Amino acid sequence: MKIVEGGVTKAKGFEAASTAAKIKYEGRTDMALVYSEIPCVAAGTFTTNVVKAAPVRWDRQLVDSGRPVQAVVVNSGIANACTGEEGMYYCEETAKAAAAALGIPADSVALGSTGEIGRQLPIDRIRAGVEALARKKDGTIENGTLAAKAIMTTDTTEKELAAQIEVNGKTVTIGGMAKGSGMIHPNMCTMLSFITTDAVISKEALQKALSEDVQNTYNMISVDGDTSTNDTVLLLANGAAQNEEIKVGTPDYEAFTEALHEINVYLAKKIAGDGEGATALFEAKVIGAKTKEQAKTLAKSIVCSDLTKTAIAGHDANWGRIFCAMGYSGAQFDPEKVDLFFESRAGKIQITEDGTAVGYSEEKATEILSQPEITAIADIKMGTEEASAWGCDLTYDYIKINADYRS
Amino acid sequence: MKIVEGGVTKAKGFEAASTAAKIKYEGRTDMALVYSEIPCVAAGTFTTNVVKAAPVRWDRQLVDSGRPVQAVVVNSGIANACTGEEGMYYCEETAKAAAAALGIPADSVALGSTGEIGRQLPIDRIRAGVEALARKKDGTIENGTLAAKAIMTTDTTEKELAAQIEVNGKTVTIGGMAKGSGMIHPNMCTMLSFITTDAVISKEALQKALSEDVQNTYNMISVDGDTSTNDTVLLLANGAAQNEEIKVGTPDYEAFTEALHEINVYLAKKIAGDGEGATALFEAKVIGAKTKEQAKTLAKSIVCSDLTKTAIAGHDANWGRIFCAMGYSGAQFDPEKVDLFFESRAGKIQITEDGTAVGYSEEKATEILSQPEITAIADIKMGTEEASAWGCDLTYDYIKINADYRS
Repeated sequence: MKIVEGGVTKAKGFEAASTAAKIKYEGRTDMALVYSEIPCVAAGTFTTNVVKAAPVRWDRQLVDSGRPVQAVVVNSGIANACTGEEGMYYCEETAKAAAAALGIPADSVALGSTGEIGRQLPIDRIRAGVEALARKKDGTIENGTLAAKAIMTTDTTEKELAAQIEVNGKTVTIGGMAKGSGMIHPNMCTMLSFITTDAVISKEALQKALSEDVQNTYNMISVDGDTSTNDTVLLLANGAAQNEEIKVGTPDYEAFTEALHEINVYLAKKIAGDGEGATALFEAKVIGAKTKEQAKTLAKSIVCSDLTKTAIAGHDANWGRIFCAMGYSGAQFDPEKVDLFFESRAGKIQITEDGTAVGYSEEKATEILSQPEITAIADIKMGTEEASAWGCDLTYDYIKINADYRS
Repeated sequence: MKIVEGGVTKAKGFEAASTAAKIKYEGRTDMALVYSEIPCVAAGTFTTNVVKAAPVRWDRQLVDSGRPVQAVVVNSGIANACTGEEGMYYCEETAKAAAAALGIPADSVALGSTGEIGRQLPIDRIRAGVEALARKKDGTIENGTLAAKAIMTTDTTEKELAAQIEVNGKTVTIGGMAKGSGMIHPNMCTMLSFITTDAVISKEALQKALSEDVQNTYNMISVDGDTSTNDTVLLLANGAAQNEEIKVGTPDYEAFTEALHEINVYLAKKIAGDGEGATALFEAKVIGAKTKEQAKTLAKSIVCSDLTKTAIAGHDANWGRIFCAMGYSGAQFDPEKVDLFFESRAGKIQITEDGTAVGYSEEKATEILSQPEITAIADIKMGTEEASAWGCDLTYDYIKINADYRS
């Protein structure tokens, strides 16, 4: 597997476009299109929130139906959540507009929305936006990047990556884009992430690969503990690589899932590190666990703690808060066995041995904690399993962004 | 039942004291004593965090043993958590010092600590502090209030209340004090809360009254989702009121639990409203629920959401975040049935009907949300049960306080 430049347009046969439709934002793009020349098999994972946005319900029905998917229309600014029947009607209208503009069936159009909850979409602007997207689409890397920018809300940077593997002499490409920032605490999957591949692969194999990988990637990040109403990961495969079909249980499937994981973990970490107001990506790594589940529970509890996150914002080695967060996670362990370390590109330092502080240098710890990527490593000495979770620091800017998000 | 002035010294036979022992803070008191002339039956509830502070383990053992309790020694500044065997040794030393100074058995001394995790107590200062406390104790209301001040960490105000009931012609008094502020998300009980009563009541009845009431009071508040290592509620009854014994299932027991609830809910709300950096007490009230448990789960999820809390900080009627938080709570309900209201002393306004926005005035909503006490009321129209949870807004000052708490 190799990482290559590009995002959703890197795989053969995929095109993208973006446009400024003035859905809510002014002076920036806010609609994106991902289009495949060939109908795709589609896999998806969606929010577990009981409150599901209209486009989530639309996509879930589409993916479950097994019908081919040929386009994804995304808008930022308004989430189309808590919008009742009117919201579902706007999904249908958006799909119809895309179908007419692209010359494809309306029931092959997937949708994505992100932004304010409770407000209705300005459907005329959406329709005009869809027409502009259909006119502007092409398969360039640039258009993929512009699409990744258009789906941003409070994100500070676009998030995209592509990877290639060889399958019996054919190059198979996977590329993806995602957006995150706030209301990020995925459960089952996450915010908006769109992955494209030109692989020949069955819908079942595609869904299995996606469902298993989100558990260790998007589901292991948290910005603020709030599971969104709109979380969506869509993975589209159009078969343009003309490889021999990738089947579950083969080395090709392993290579495919490895490349997919690389894309997903990269996008998930980018989302965590670009959390609203964040200045640092904070990884919690639990090692020496008895089970993977135990390691995941402990790691996620650490990155979700407001107190841990404010300590990271202050570059303060307040390790007691990490112990506290592990303690209320629900997982069993012996706090008096835990060795804790902090690590970043400034070095690695041991903080506790068997649950109590070793005589470490606070200055060195602060230096390590002042880097843009920080890892806390907790060895709980119960076995050989491990897991990582990713979050960010909690800063003034998170409050600033969210105290008056709607105005 | 009537509310009366005072706190832990209001009930007959109880004394209190405070002193500046320089445990960690300078220029303020940081140790408190609650003492009863008569040995007390004791009830307690403690943190469910796997990481339990040394004083929590000490008190739990003491309460479980059924031995009488005659004094509680509390320090702020250092939590004596994650301190290993050395921490337990300091508990024993503190109890011994109190026993010597007060002329009571060491195994009748309960302990409480709050503050930084991981640091060892300066035991010589603790010993000197205990001696000063023993010298200074008396039964005045003022000394009770000073004790409530001494146990504060980042709290901005002391928290105390007392209530009286009549039991067969005898006045029975209950009084309490508590501290909260950060790392507040009690599970089973909360931070530090000490309640005294002169009632004649059995240990079993006392524990039942306490255990049942914490579920609807301390366990329904959250400042930051972090369940502390030190959460403790102790309820001491010394029998000095000489009332006929209060027995479970009698009208007297009802009156006693009602008064106890009044104290607990008052202290719990004071803790929520005085959360670190908070400018408002935020109550979430879920009505029309099918079960009490469902109402509690939904209400607590609303007050725990960082996004809801930042919206309250911004006086922004961002109701979608409330729906979102209810949606990921784990409780089932139909979002398309929910009527949502905001209420404060500035009035009451309906925001949604059957899950979608009604045409409400944003200005009026902002006015209502700019008060120091705000309630969100969600009617989920499934039954007749209801529950409240209490939290606070999330502000710059929470970050400021916690980003560098230890320095």
